[in-house]
Amino acid sequence: MHVSYEQAETAITAAITESQKIGVQMCIAIVDSGADLKSFIRMDGAWLGSSDIAIKKAKTACFFGMSTGSIGELSQPGAPLYGIEHSNEGLITFPGGIPIVNNDGILIGAIGVSGSSVEHDHQVAKAAIDVIGLADLPSHPWRT
Amino acid sequence: MHVSYEQAETAITAAITESQKIGVQMCIAIVDSGADLKSFIRMDGAWLGSSDIAIKKAKTACFFGMSTGSIGELSQPGAPLYGIEHSNEGLITFPGGIPIVNNDGILIGAIGVSGSSVEHDHQVAKAAIDVIGLADLPSHPWRT
Amino acid sequence: MHVSYEQAETAITAAITESQKIGVQMCIAIVDSGADLKSFIRMDGAWLGSSDIAIKKAKTACFFGMSTGSIGELSQPGAPLYGIEHSNEGLITFPGGIPIVNNDGILIGAIGVSGSSVEHDHQVAKAAIDVIGLADLPSHPWRT
Amino acid sequence: MHVSYEQAETAITAAITESQKIGVQMCIAIVDSGADLKSFIRMDGAWLGSSDIAIKKAKTACFFGMSTGSIGELSQPGAPLYGIEHSNEGLITFPGGIPIVNNDGILIGAIGVSGSSVEHDHQVAKAAIDVIGLADLPSHPWRT
Repeated sequence: MHVSYEQAETAITAAITESQKIGVQMCIAIVDSGADLKSFIRMDGAWLGSSDIAIKKAKTACFFGMSTGSIGELSQPGAPLYGIEHSNEGLITFPGGIPIVNNDGILIGAIGVSGSSVEHDHQVAKAAIDVIGLADLPSHPWRT
Repeated sequence: MHVSYEQAETAITAAITESQKIGVQMCIAIVDSGADLKSFIRMDGAWLGSSDIAIKKAKTACFFGMSTGSIGELSQPGAPLYGIEHSNEGLITFPGGIPIVNNDGILIGAIGVSGSSVEHDHQVAKAAIDVIGLADLPSHPWRT
Repeated sequence: MHVSYEQAETAITAAITESQKIGVQMCIAIVDSGADLKSFIRMDGAWLGSSDIAIKKAKTACFFGMSTGSIGELSQPGAPLYGIEHSNEGLITFPGGIPIVNNDGILIGAIGVSGSSVEHDHQVAKAAIDVIGLADLPSHPWRT
Repeated sequence: MHVSYEQAETAITAAITESQKIGVQMCIAIVDSGADLKSFIRMDGAWLGSSDIAIKKAKTACFFGMSTGSIGELSQPGAPLYGIEHSNEGLITFPGGIPIVNNDGILIGAIGVSGSSVEHDHQVAKAAIDVIGLADLPSHPWRT
C-alpha cells in the first residue's frame, strides 16, 4: 500500500501553504512505503543542501516507521543507536521526517521537510500529513 | 538564472496531461541550471526504476546543454564520447531529457522524463517545455 | 503487496534444488515490490562476485517489471535504451532476473540468480518462481 | 575457512525461532570470514531500514573479530576509535553483530541482527551462534 500521486500532491500543497504562512523556503520530499521517492519540490530560495536532507528525512522516517526526531534521541553519543546515521547510505535523525499512516494503521509512506529550524521543518511536515492521514503507527506488525 | 517553482509546476502539469493523453505512466524530473533537483513526481503505476532515469536525464541535459538523445549519438561504441555515461555519477544518454531555455537564450534548467518508449518520453518532455520556454540553446556562452 | 518471507524461502529452496540438479553453485536474491532485499543466499562454492549480480538482477527485474534479459535486448549499442545500466546505482541486464507476479497480476517482488551461464541462471530463477507465482506482468497499471 | 550454507541456514532458523519467542521482527545477515554476504532474511513486518543495519553489523563484527557493541564502546566521542564508522563504507557499532568462531578458534564469519532493541538484537544473534559455534575469538592471529 503506497501513498498515491494525488495524496502526495495534496500534502505538498499543504506543506507549501504552511511554509508561506511561516515565511520559510522549504524542500519537501515524499516517499512511498518502499522508501522510494514519489514526489519532491524545492521552493524558490530554499537552501540547495536541503534537498538531500529532505529526501533522507523522508526515507529515514519510512525505514523505521517513526519520526526522525525520535530516532535522533536514540542516536546521541552514549545512547543505544549511536552512529545509526551511517546505515542506508546516510540517515538524517533530527526532526522534519514523519511517517504517513492511513486510517487502517498501515504505513503508506513518509514525508521529509528541510529548509528552516527543525521546529519549523517538523511543523510543516505535520501540516502536510494532517490533510492526508495519520502520523503515528500502531505496534508491530505494520508493514505487509 | 533558474527555473522557478511556478514554472516547474506548470511544466509538470503539462507533462502529466500529455502522459494521460498518450496513456502512459511517467516519472518527471526538473533540475535548475545548477543541475540540482527542483521538482519531481512519479505517477501512480510508473516503473520504480524510472525515477532515477528521469532525474539522470534531466541532469544530463543540463550538464551539456543539449538533449540526451543528441549525447547518445556521440556515446555509441566508436563515437567520440564513448563511455561518457561513467561521468557525473551516471548519465543517461537516450531520449527524454531536454534543456529548458528562456526567451533570452539562457539555460535555466532541464527536464527528464522516463516511463515509456523513448519516443513517448521525449514527446512528454517537449510538451512540458513548450508551456514555459524553449528547448534549444544558442551557441556558447549560454550559462550565466 | 509484497512477497512474504514464507514465499521467499519456498522459492529459494526450489532454486537450490534446481541448481543441485544442474550441478551449479548459485547466488539467489529476492526483493519485494519496493526493490528492497527480502532474502539472499550464496551457495557454497559460488563465485563471490555473483552476490551483487544476483541482487542487481532482482532489483532490475523489479524496477521495470520485466525479465532482465528483455531489458538487455533494448540496451545494446544502437538500441533505444543503450546505457540504461548506469541508472539506479547499476543495473544488470542479462538473463537471470525475473519479476514475481501473484495470481491477481500484481508485481510482488522479483528474483535474481547468478553463478553459472545466463541460461542456467534464468532456468533456476524460473524454477523458483514457478512454485510461488507467475513471471509475467499484465499491461499497465500493475503497481499500486 | 568460511561458514557453510548449511551452518548459515541453521543459524538463521535459530534466530527466527528466538525472534518469534520474543515477539519481534528481525533482519538477519550472515557473512563469511571475508565479510562477504552469505545469507540474509528480512522477516515479515521488520523495519525496512534494518536490512542494511543487519548486514553492516555482520560485516563490522567480521572486520574486527569482535562484537559490534565492543567496538561501539571505543568509538564514542573522546574514545580511541571515535568516528571509525566512516570506514569500510559505513560501520554499525551498537550491539547486534557477533563473530562466528569454530571449535578451533578460527573466525569463520559473523552474524548481524537488527529490528528491535539492541538488547534483543544481541540476544537473537547470540542464540543463532550458539547452535553452530562460538562467539569469542582467541588472541591474534585468528584469521587464516
